[in-house]
Amino acid sequence: MTIQERKAIPIPQVEARKPVPRQNLRVPGPTPVPPEVLEAQAAPMINHRGPEFSAIMKRVTPRLQYFFQTASPVLTYPAAGTGGQECAVVNVFSPGDHVVSIIIGNFGKRLAQIAEAYGLNVSRIEFPWGEAADPAIIETRLKELAPYKGVLITHNETSTGITNDVQALAALVRRLSPDALVVVDAVSSLSSVPLEMDPWDLDVVFTGSQKGWMIPPGIMMIAASERAWQAHKNAKLPRFYWDWTSTRKHLETSWQHPTTPPVSLFYALDVALEMMLAEGREAIFARHVKAGDYVRGRVQAMGLKLLATDLRYASNTVTAIQAPEGIETKALLKKLHDEDQIVLADGQDHMKGKMFRIGHLGYFTEADLQQALDAVERHLKELGYQA
Amino acid sequence: MTIQERKAIPIPQVEARKPVPRQNLRVPGPTPVPPEVLEAQAAPMINHRGPEFSAIMKRVTPRLQYFFQTASPVLTYPAAGTGGQECAVVNVFSPGDHVVSIIIGNFGKRLAQIAEAYGLNVSRIEFPWGEAADPAIIETRLKELAPYKGVLITHNETSTGITNDVQALAALVRRLSPDALVVVDAVSSLSSVPLEMDPWDLDVVFTGSQKGWMIPPGIMMIAASERAWQAHKNAKLPRFYWDWTSTRKHLETSWQHPTTPPVSLFYALDVALEMMLAEGREAIFARHVKAGDYVRGRVQAMGLKLLATDLRYASNTVTAIQAPEGIETKALLKKLHDEDQIVLADGQDHMKGKMFRIGHLGYFTEADLQQALDAVERHLKELGYQA
Repeated sequence: MTIQERKAIPIPQVEARKPVPRQNLRVPGPTPVPPEVLEAQAAPMINHRGPEFSAIMKRVTPRLQYFFQTASPVLTYPAAGTGGQECAVVNVFSPGDHVVSIIIGNFGKRLAQIAEAYGLNVSRIEFPWGEAADPAIIETRLKELAPYKGVLITHNETSTGITNDVQALAALVRRLSPDALVVVDAVSSLSSVPLEMDPWDLDVVFTGSQKGWMIPPGIMMIAASERAWQAHKNAKLPRFYWDWTSTRKHLETSWQHPTTPPVSLFYALDVALEMMLAEGREAIFARHVKAGDYVRGRVQAMGLKLLATDLRYASNTVTAIQAPEGIETKALLKKLHDEDQIVLADGQDHMKGKMFRIGHLGYFTEADLQQALDAVERHLKELGYQA
Repeated sequence: MTIQERKAIPIPQVEARKPVPRQNLRVPGPTPVPPEVLEAQAAPMINHRGPEFSAIMKRVTPRLQYFFQTASPVLTYPAAGTGGQECAVVNVFSPGDHVVSIIIGNFGKRLAQIAEAYGLNVSRIEFPWGEAADPAIIETRLKELAPYKGVLITHNETSTGITNDVQALAALVRRLSPDALVVVDAVSSLSSVPLEMDPWDLDVVFTGSQKGWMIPPGIMMIAASERAWQAHKNAKLPRFYWDWTSTRKHLETSWQHPTTPPVSLFYALDVALEMMLAEGREAIFARHVKAGDYVRGRVQAMGLKLLATDLRYASNTVTAIQAPEGIETKALLKKLHDEDQIVLADGQDHMKGKMFRIGHLGYFTEADLQQALDAVERHLKELGYQA
């Protein structure tokens, strides 16, 4: 095709924009955002190289360190949570490095896929969906698989509603392989359930803004231990956008970023962190414990089956429920959406249509959860479900 | 250090948050955002896997194609503009590929650095800051450097206020090396000045939300020609987050993304594109031409020197001005900021402190530019400048 033949693109005809609906949004991210945080985004733009932006970073960085429980700098990137997975891998490993990937669901699988895409030698320890990583099995397998440079662990598996005992798993890795890096995907856990990066001796921890942080998606936060920073110095995987060295340098010299940060989302983060500190870290954890207990209790009272096989590992940020026999998740979710403006999440991967998930993290009240569960109960009956 | 010895992180003491100031923000990004677009961000969160979000993507995608002037899908990522540079490189090249990097300033340099970080064999054709790429020199050098897999070109170099004649350069590459990929960094040009991806036969084009699109930073947009999609199939650089295949698949099957998109920024983009179409593409271009003419005229009338050595290539989105002898950019910028709430940009890299830049792209009026230039004139006099 010659240049002359190439067609100009006409103005497209599109459907008219409608107001964004107000819903009871109960997916495990994006989570509802408090009105004062939503409003904060509407402030005018400022220069990301100026003192006003640096002032924001001076406030949010130590507060993020407090929620991470780390003395290491918490670095922030314009990215989705998957960006955190890639950022973790490319900064500490080299091509061919042997890493062990502990997989209990879809996001653990994704972290392993990223490590493989970058040419790492990945050994997988997989558990069926609904189970947590069993420390006894992990210990046996890690002994067989040694030596390895790192172990990749999902803290809270969003696809299955299971929370791994990261503290125990990290202690196990440390005992067996003192120099191995413990990389923790804390996207849907951090700030909602306990995670103590330095006390638990975790090496890389990352999370995403759209989960427990009560702000919209678009900021990824990541921190590294001294051990991980040492590994970073010799890590040979190619990187530029995700490179920790330049991000840390800009943070430490000017409270800024090497690239243009998502300014309006930082306005939101600034306000959300204030609200979270006003509520208190332990109070937030307690609220999530209560939410998890409440949702699981209601689900079991309905005679429904949790995906979690062992309640000790059932997540306090997202509950996964098996679809009753003969009922399609899709029909239930559609009724909830269309009739009640309640939005739940379908299963992922091979469990799509076979389960549904209720998010209970970040900004919510028990009344939100009650409304959602009342509606689930009503619609399941309409669909022919009998407990 | 044992686990027991690791210290808990106390709640940090930080400075109190202040209201975001209203400024005459005249940096070349982030650019000012219209009030209706700012407000759009404050709508409640929705499910990125639901019909409401897909409806947004159905509107913004063809409108982005219109502004790109391409029939190819325009893919969107949660990222800064630098993410666009990395995304372009990793999707179409393989380790060791020879590429030619045409560099006229800081962002051209960054694109070459990214290509090198990923193990490409990069030949640089560099021009002094303030100059555009000279097609005659490019022709000679390209003939010497052949064969090469791609040519990396900055459309508008934000660090120097120079717009390359991408149409001519692309035609030159096509004539010399029909199969070479023309990769265009259009971060600070696209939607503000003419760029026609399909008619000009460009292979990869990317841009960032915080420039001419009148929304905050956080969304990167990228499109690829059929030639680039073919190259993508065999491109071996490691990638996951930036992978086009998965992003295109999600867009084409569900009008969604493989990862969680920055929902509130898409609300903003949806409204901004409506406003841009209401103004009209050609009218937007004309407004930027007028702005460029006005700013250059005022600067020259003050007896100041533009960084641009040839006015034909002076940018209509950002003007770079040499600091008058004996006057530090820093002092001028501080006066503008502190006394007039006007924010201009310093020079980058080796030109920091030796020049300043005025952004005139996206959402602005001539009154904004006049106010900024009046203040520049006044403060330069106070600082001892005599024309």
